[in-house]
Amino acid sequence: MTDTETGAKTPSRRALIGWGGAGLALGAAVAGGAVAVTRTDDMDPAAADTGGAVDFHGAHQAGIATPVQDRLHFAAFDVTTASRAEFVQMLKDWTEAARRMTAGKAIGEGAYGGLAEAPPDDTGEALGLKPSRLTLTIGFGPSLFDKFGLKDKRPEALVDLPQFPGDNLDKARSGGDLCIQACADDPQVAVHAIRNLARIGFGKAAIRWSQLGFGKTSSTTPGAQTPRNLFGFKDGTRNIAGTETDRLKKFVWVGEGDGTDWMTGGSYLVARRIRMNIETWDRTSLAEQEDVFGRDKREGAAVGKAKEHDEPFLKAMKPTAHVRLAHPDSNNGATILRRGYSFTDGTDGLGRLEAGLFFLAYQRDVRKGFIPVQRNLSRMDALNEYTQHVGSAIFAIPPGVKDAGDWWGRTLFSKEA
Amino acid sequence: MTDTETGAKTPSRRALIGWGGAGLALGAAVAGGAVAVTRTDDMDPAAADTGGAVDFHGAHQAGIATPVQDRLHFAAFDVTTASRAEFVQMLKDWTEAARRMTAGKAIGEGAYGGLAEAPPDDTGEALGLKPSRLTLTIGFGPSLFDKFGLKDKRPEALVDLPQFPGDNLDKARSGGDLCIQACADDPQVAVHAIRNLARIGFGKAAIRWSQLGFGKTSSTTPGAQTPRNLFGFKDGTRNIAGTETDRLKKFVWVGEGDGTDWMTGGSYLVARRIRMNIETWDRTSLAEQEDVFGRDKREGAAVGKAKEHDEPFLKAMKPTAHVRLAHPDSNNGATILRRGYSFTDGTDGLGRLEAGLFFLAYQRDVRKGFIPVQRNLSRMDALNEYTQHVGSAIFAIPPGVKDAGDWWGRTLFSKEA
Repeated sequence: MTDTETGAKTPSRRALIGWGGAGLALGAAVAGGAVAVTRTDDMDPAAADTGGAVDFHGAHQAGIATPVQDRLHFAAFDVTTASRAEFVQMLKDWTEAARRMTAGKAIGEGAYGGLAEAPPDDTGEALGLKPSRLTLTIGFGPSLFDKFGLKDKRPEALVDLPQFPGDNLDKARSGGDLCIQACADDPQVAVHAIRNLARIGFGKAAIRWSQLGFGKTSSTTPGAQTPRNLFGFKDGTRNIAGTETDRLKKFVWVGEGDGTDWMTGGSYLVARRIRMNIETWDRTSLAEQEDVFGRDKREGAAVGKAKEHDEPFLKAMKPTAHVRLAHPDSNNGATILRRGYSFTDGTDGLGRLEAGLFFLAYQRDVRKGFIPVQRNLSRMDALNEYTQHVGSAIFAIPPGVKDAGDWWGRTLFSKEA
Repeated sequence: MTDTETGAKTPSRRALIGWGGAGLALGAAVAGGAVAVTRTDDMDPAAADTGGAVDFHGAHQAGIATPVQDRLHFAAFDVTTASRAEFVQMLKDWTEAARRMTAGKAIGEGAYGGLAEAPPDDTGEALGLKPSRLTLTIGFGPSLFDKFGLKDKRPEALVDLPQFPGDNLDKARSGGDLCIQACADDPQVAVHAIRNLARIGFGKAAIRWSQLGFGKTSSTTPGAQTPRNLFGFKDGTRNIAGTETDRLKKFVWVGEGDGTDWMTGGSYLVARRIRMNIETWDRTSLAEQEDVFGRDKREGAAVGKAKEHDEPFLKAMKPTAHVRLAHPDSNNGATILRRGYSFTDGTDGLGRLEAGLFFLAYQRDVRKGFIPVQRNLSRMDALNEYTQHVGSAIFAIPPGVKDAGDWWGRTLFSKEA
């Protein structure tokens, strides 16, 4: 079956969108005033309102420096096969499916292709929906390296995270041999992607836990306002923008000299499920809320400053202020790229909203990124009174899939596969 | 504080949108070809891409015949006060908050209004977001009528639902004295609304359970294609359109002669949490899937027909086909207005997606609507092999709030309040 036969999903009029190499076009668009970013949107300027597809191929995986999409479905998997060959084949099959889905195409012969006597290749619920800037990003957890003879390949930087003060981690929502981060502007597109990868993985990998995020809380678009979290605040204002190639190189992408060749061009992801005690926070005074963050609530400006993006004067804040403690100047320059999402998973047994922040941070080395920052925060942050870390995972994010012949994990598996 | 001071939320350039009285405008727009409905969208033609506000006031509550928004947050509450006066005051406070939020305004003095020493009136996470066609719809459950001397006011039509074959209901996800249905195109706007109503209700009503829906599965827009459910099918094709005033009057709105005066202009809502066994379905052949529904998967046409909206020939289908059993002709004409949403709540203990359909159906009388249809379906529907009803609730939906002086539940409470 050709793409044309998948009907409405054919991406004929769709542009492939991404920061990569788009500097000129971006500059031109902004200079021409053609792009209206009217709210806290993190739309790729070139993709605004096009429902465009993000290029799956590149030196780095999409979904990291890519402008943050509106919705998230994140899944951690455990390996269920003992066969390395089977596992590698699954990675190849996943890559092909991801290549098609991110381009807005159905998988294989589609939801009504092939034999009527066989299950459709694609489950079908995304038919007729736009590509919605879907990105799919794979990661390998520490436990994967206990399998398939990979022990010597485990990067030193892929450490087991230490227990931080206040951690109350649910094992069932932590860890995982693999992860897939699906981000898209339409949640049905993200859910469809995870579901179909899980389906392809049947017998080889099974979902360990998953998390739906309904609202982004971070921006990687230069100058954009930061979306508000469930405490009603902007947080993570000084995030790394997708256009800041120097900072990305320094803080996010694994470099050639970093000691693990197969990871060059990759990154490390820390995922934390942070429960927010919404009801307690909502009974806290505005003054206390602003002291806790070290920002004003209205604009998101640091204490004593006028605008969100004004450089903060840390000493003007309380020593326990979140902005002060998380700032690179309080952490020997440690800088991470954040891509977190708000979540709401119904209600707990006490009638409180089961809600919070699904924190996602990318960095070149967690030992110089998340770990020192979180050590600092977990010890002193005034916000700890209102939050609790209840899930945790770390993943090595391999480099991008270069072209149509490449596949996820090739640099890790190829020589012996 | 004036509206202007709430900054970005001021709805100055926003049109109030709704079907009511819009027949002429709608006709003109369609005739003029000015409206492009390009996918399965259920956008109000006049509201497309405006982020517009839906009028809170009217003879009927918004959120029923209103064009279906993309996202849902639904909450059931239990009453926690014994004071009727307190409860009535809460309904009035809720009404005022709902009036402001649906217009895109912050509650009270806003997230940074009033005294710095007091908690803000609004939690703030929707600041800067568009109204996003937010509708808030209140309902009263059977158990409410055991309280506050309301026994004689309970409508006969507000029956306790019978146990249907195959029901496996979780009490913690069923029932409730009250409900609020929040629908919006932006989930953060819907979540914000439920959270702030819960906050206002503190000490008077507490959330019993809540459900986030990420993708609509029904359309109330005439001629629109039906969005696909998580089985990849269109279902509920013959839904009542928001423009079909005759069918709405006959099947949805409680009439003057229906025996419960305070409900005139209201409706009855049945909510069912239907778990879908995604993994089993995904291993089922296309032929079987199409037999189960009685439709083709590609177009959504009934067996032997070409187009989704072609009138089905029921006898061409298997006797157990979902379309055949749910059709009014198989149920003495019983017709309901559907507004269901897909949900995904992570993963169950067996690594399966905890996913399904949060079914919402509005009708004039459940004894002539949901109950006979579900009796038929629960006995014979081939779909039952792949689904299970795990939550259930029923609510009386009072008539609309007429104007700025009116409030939710006035027709039920006013004489003795």
